[in-house]
Amino acid sequence: MPEYKPVPLPPLRDLNDDNITENTIIVNNQSPSPRLRYVFARLVTHLHDFARETRLSSDEWMAAIEFLTAVGQICSETRQEFILLSDVMGLSCLVDVMNHPKPAGATSGTVLGPFHTHDALEFSQGESICSEGKGEPALVSITIKDTAGRPIEGVAVDIWETDETGHYDTQYADREGPDCRGILKSNEKGEIVFKAIRPVPYPIPHDGPVGKLLEKLGRHPYRPSHMHFKFDKPGYDELVTSLYLRGDPYETTDAVFGVKSSLILDLKKIEDAELAKTHDLKVDDYLITYDFVLVTDEEAKTLKIKNAEEALKKLGVTALVVEGLPIDALD
Amino acid sequence: MPEYKPVPLPPLRDLNDDNITENTIIVNNQSPSPRLRYVFARLVTHLHDFARETRLSSDEWMAAIEFLTAVGQICSETRQEFILLSDVMGLSCLVDVMNHPKPAGATSGTVLGPFHTHDALEFSQGESICSEGKGEPALVSITIKDTAGRPIEGVAVDIWETDETGHYDTQYADREGPDCRGILKSNEKGEIVFKAIRPVPYPIPHDGPVGKLLEKLGRHPYRPSHMHFKFDKPGYDELVTSLYLRGDPYETTDAVFGVKSSLILDLKKIEDAELAKTHDLKVDDYLITYDFVLVTDEEAKTLKIKNAEEALKKLGVTALVVEGLPIDALD
Repeated sequence: MPEYKPVPLPPLRDLNDDNITENTIIVNNQSPSPRLRYVFARLVTHLHDFARETRLSSDEWMAAIEFLTAVGQICSETRQEFILLSDVMGLSCLVDVMNHPKPAGATSGTVLGPFHTHDALEFSQGESICSEGKGEPALVSITIKDTAGRPIEGVAVDIWETDETGHYDTQYADREGPDCRGILKSNEKGEIVFKAIRPVPYPIPHDGPVGKLLEKLGRHPYRPSHMHFKFDKPGYDELVTSLYLRGDPYETTDAVFGVKSSLILDLKKIEDAELAKTHDLKVDDYLITYDFVLVTDEEAKTLKIKNAEEALKKLGVTALVVEGLPIDALD
Repeated sequence: MPEYKPVPLPPLRDLNDDNITENTIIVNNQSPSPRLRYVFARLVTHLHDFARETRLSSDEWMAAIEFLTAVGQICSETRQEFILLSDVMGLSCLVDVMNHPKPAGATSGTVLGPFHTHDALEFSQGESICSEGKGEPALVSITIKDTAGRPIEGVAVDIWETDETGHYDTQYADREGPDCRGILKSNEKGEIVFKAIRPVPYPIPHDGPVGKLLEKLGRHPYRPSHMHFKFDKPGYDELVTSLYLRGDPYETTDAVFGVKSSLILDLKKIEDAELAKTHDLKVDDYLITYDFVLVTDEEAKTLKIKNAEEALKKLGVTALVVEGLPIDALD
């Protein structure tokens, strides 16, 4: 690509509501990155159009400044309020769908949420990822296959859920280490079996600015019962997803737009006495089973580029598209 | 207005890039505020369209989350990085123009910036708002009139500027109180005279996330030499503005889009020996003079509503407009 030489800047004075957008874009276009130029041109256009269409008042602008500041200030090592904001505004759902497209038959992804951590411990098959007394025991038995039905060995599966009070370990004031989370590796049959607890519905953290926003919008902060899963193996597209329990009171009104029909399962009982005994559980303890299907990097990339090209064409975007991402190309 | 009854929610599952926007708006529409419903419908539409048009990648989304978090975290009692972000993206300029329209002959407004404080002291006519050694002395002599040319008495004028090193007092590590800022009241002739220092160009704080962003965009962080003014008197529309010095190296490339031709002045010398003596200054010390024209609340409101109606019509917005603000009305 030839060296990018930004056009000479016009005099940036006397800017008003008619010419500020064009001129902001011209200044930002000094960036040498064609992708950054494209992204910021669209960002500035939408930001300004939003203000123009709403005739945003000075008081509303200041309220937004104070809200975003509060969202940033409440973030910590163990709390990510901006991801929460992205989740409740439907942005996380949208970004996930675009970035991890699934061909027919593959397991759907869903929002990561703000509670994934990088300190989960590794567990062996059959172990419990929850310490004693965290909730009603559940045996989880899943398989992981590729789109051709072949088991995938050696997938690192990261699992996290709340305790029976609806709190993740990161929400404990006296957190000493990970709990109700863990990583297991699939065996040669693509299987993982572990002990956990029955998921429960819970409100997303609503004592902060995002909670106050939901209240103003007349929205409840609840998520239906679910267990998070993240699947990683080189050569396969990372799958971030969750399993949901059918019949949950919040099944159709998830505050973060995460539920997909294909991820809802019927919670069972173990029943099989031998299986219960093997895992030191009772026959009427819960059983969760699910068959996951991963796509390869290749399958995901091909589909992502195809989807991007189709969607951009539909939107009338004429920019140059490189690997599924539109850029501001040179003339 | 009749009581607002939100439409029953559809099942919010199986959301994808095609239906997430519509459904997020339906959920937000549970808010009882018609203005909030309108603002959030436009916000969600633009946010999602931005992500769709750019095919925002997961990495870019995460970079944005981390950037916004850093912007919030660096904010403090004396630093407002989100206002700085709004300034460099041209949003502050746009919001100011819409909210404080000026009829012909009235003094233009410009961005407030993040350095206004609420602890400025009151000064008497002729006093210096800067402590000793802050920079080259300048005598500032201004008049304040209404659009009919009548002097306005009793206007509280809030003035703030940097010292000669380009730093506001709020940027001092050991700040003990206000400096290079102050409030004076206009006399019966609508006059204010005070001592200050010659303004200098300076970079906006660029050691934080906004500075890093400007670098990526290939932009410099400088503002041309200026002195901030805020005029308050009941019955008059608050005027937030600045005076700029002609010939400044950054006159046409202000990082925050604040310069307006009508606010640029020629820096003079005092010359008049008597005037210099009166203020204990030298004849070759600087002199800044300017005649400000304020609009009444009534004039501003009428013009604001007229501008809003015209602009929204031009944009094709069909929403009900109440006092210049579009709302989501009942059917």
